[in-house]
Amino acid sequence: MTGPSRVDRARALLAELDVDALLVSRTANKRWLANFILQPAEEPTSGYSGTLLLTADRQIVLADPRYVEQATADCAGWELVQTADPLEAELPPLLADLGVARLGAEAEALSHAHWQALADAAPDVTLVPADGPMQRLRLLKDSREIVALERACALTDACFAHLLDTVRPGMTERQVAWELEGWFRSNGADGIAFDPLVLAGARAAMPHGRTSDVEVREGEPLLIDFGCAVDGYRSDMTRTVFIGSASDRARELYAHVLAAQEAAFAAARAGVIGSSVHQAALAVLEAAALGEAFTHGLGHGIGLETHEDPRLKTWHQPLEVGMVFTLEPGVYLPGEIGIRIEDDIHLTDDGPRRLTGAPRDLIVI
Amino acid sequence: MTGPSRVDRARALLAELDVDALLVSRTANKRWLANFILQPAEEPTSGYSGTLLLTADRQIVLADPRYVEQATADCAGWELVQTADPLEAELPPLLADLGVARLGAEAEALSHAHWQALADAAPDVTLVPADGPMQRLRLLKDSREIVALERACALTDACFAHLLDTVRPGMTERQVAWELEGWFRSNGADGIAFDPLVLAGARAAMPHGRTSDVEVREGEPLLIDFGCAVDGYRSDMTRTVFIGSASDRARELYAHVLAAQEAAFAAARAGVIGSSVHQAALAVLEAAALGEAFTHGLGHGIGLETHEDPRLKTWHQPLEVGMVFTLEPGVYLPGEIGIRIEDDIHLTDDGPRRLTGAPRDLIVI
Repeated sequence: MTGPSRVDRARALLAELDVDALLVSRTANKRWLANFILQPAEEPTSGYSGTLLLTADRQIVLADPRYVEQATADCAGWELVQTADPLEAELPPLLADLGVARLGAEAEALSHAHWQALADAAPDVTLVPADGPMQRLRLLKDSREIVALERACALTDACFAHLLDTVRPGMTERQVAWELEGWFRSNGADGIAFDPLVLAGARAAMPHGRTSDVEVREGEPLLIDFGCAVDGYRSDMTRTVFIGSASDRARELYAHVLAAQEAAFAAARAGVIGSSVHQAALAVLEAAALGEAFTHGLGHGIGLETHEDPRLKTWHQPLEVGMVFTLEPGVYLPGEIGIRIEDDIHLTDDGPRRLTGAPRDLIVI
Repeated sequence: MTGPSRVDRARALLAELDVDALLVSRTANKRWLANFILQPAEEPTSGYSGTLLLTADRQIVLADPRYVEQATADCAGWELVQTADPLEAELPPLLADLGVARLGAEAEALSHAHWQALADAAPDVTLVPADGPMQRLRLLKDSREIVALERACALTDACFAHLLDTVRPGMTERQVAWELEGWFRSNGADGIAFDPLVLAGARAAMPHGRTSDVEVREGEPLLIDFGCAVDGYRSDMTRTVFIGSASDRARELYAHVLAAQEAAFAAARAGVIGSSVHQAALAVLEAAALGEAFTHGLGHGIGLETHEDPRLKTWHQPLEVGMVFTLEPGVYLPGEIGIRIEDDIHLTDDGPRRLTGAPRDLIVI
């Protein structure tokens, strides 16, 4: 059973937004829609090397000379227009030729300078922000996307097993990060999905601390938040392990975080309001007087971007079959300890399914 | 001898742009002005975690809770305002309190969505694009910046020496890239400055090809374009080496590229128009009927960003003492060969000075 193609689904937005064409600038959307893959440094805010234009009957890749060969090979079914300065030179006459009066464009992906340059060069065209509708196209993952996500998550589990064999007191946070990055690159991932967070001891209480030269020490926790990419699809997993021993206090806190994640997993079903899943985890922590120590949202969608919709804490709509998101409750006691347990979840007709499967019970290494 | 402080130099823009305050959003500018360092994923286009506001008598860091501790420690002399949603919540009343009617802001660093959100939330404030003047503040490097650039370039030379000892036929481009990245991380760099380009054989004819699993082979060229960062300051060097042997044709082409770089080096002096240095290199290649094969600009400024002003090909103003830029002529013959030689140059009172010093003569390994 196959549904409408991705291009057809994007075209359905033309009527929804009452626009004549869509200009697609966001990295993940260009890849999802046309298999057009640019280097991160070539993306819109630092230049303008390639973009997509979609109308009711045309689908066009605009690429600068460096990307022409690649776009020709990769973007089957798309016409190619070579550009030098698309927003000010090539795009305005093309929009006029195609009779575009209203153009959907991504205001979050384009710099204001680029948006304004296009508005000035095509004064008869009305630019219509199209970020939300464009990103919603990627909300439900198809079977091909699930395969890539499964592979990224399986590699992440295997990498974690490797870390359990490798991490020893005296290694620095940076060395652990480097070890996992090397493992991913040598074992078939595209690379890491984001700079891993490796936080030793009380540093784990900083939910967005930075990996440093601090050493892993006996008797302390080690929080590792990491993931890889496979065919552009990301994984994102966190485990908090203990070096040598774990105190009773740490074991108690860990048990509460694990219970919160299990409550969230049990609550996460198609038809349930996303924010209620956040509330389910929060309720467990509040019952342990740890509600204040849970300082962030429960989880976020994951796919071609590490952070995408649905953001569970603020998702006041029903969850749907095909969504993939993280469940990552945590407690952070400044100066003392931080514990987070994060897995990637696929919502199916039969309920939630864990894509990451590394052990969740407290591990002492 | 010290000149005006960085903050004082930024304040001088208030009069130049006829604005009451500057909103500083660009990563490199936040670091340069206030030592405020955010993780790349937290930058404006993907969120809005921290920004700077400068008036004639106030200097304020606006940071979300994750960055409060760091900003307090790192940004000496700056007031701190904690934010949840700065553009729509905290900034508009602050601008009103400070009597800001005209606000300079970076249209290239802010997404259109953010720019518009601020315009809507502060309808009495006129937003004035300030990108060029803000970036020009970083054009001439001071002695502290030169020290960091020298260290990044010296590490790059040493890494190249390591690669000459390491690269062997049968290694893939990716393995070479991984080798150099690991070397930088183990030898004191912050990390790589950009994803290195490692291109074997005829693939080197693609000036922006991507590092792949293709193997390095006997008798072929290998182009390596790489750099690291030290205290945020970047290096960027390219060498094209030959594996086992180099043909007479390759040696001839190499000699032309080297001559072009030497002509550019000789021409690069304070007071000379930047684009004339590009022309000096081009003239050498044109004399060898290779003008068409030199498909990009001669070089770009380098500092806290890998690519910054002056872009030599289009810099129709005099070069100045304190500028640091690359000289990177290349010839690209599709399907056959690509050769580029790139060094980082510091313009001093005594003329140009090479910061990268790896051998430029043709190397066979």
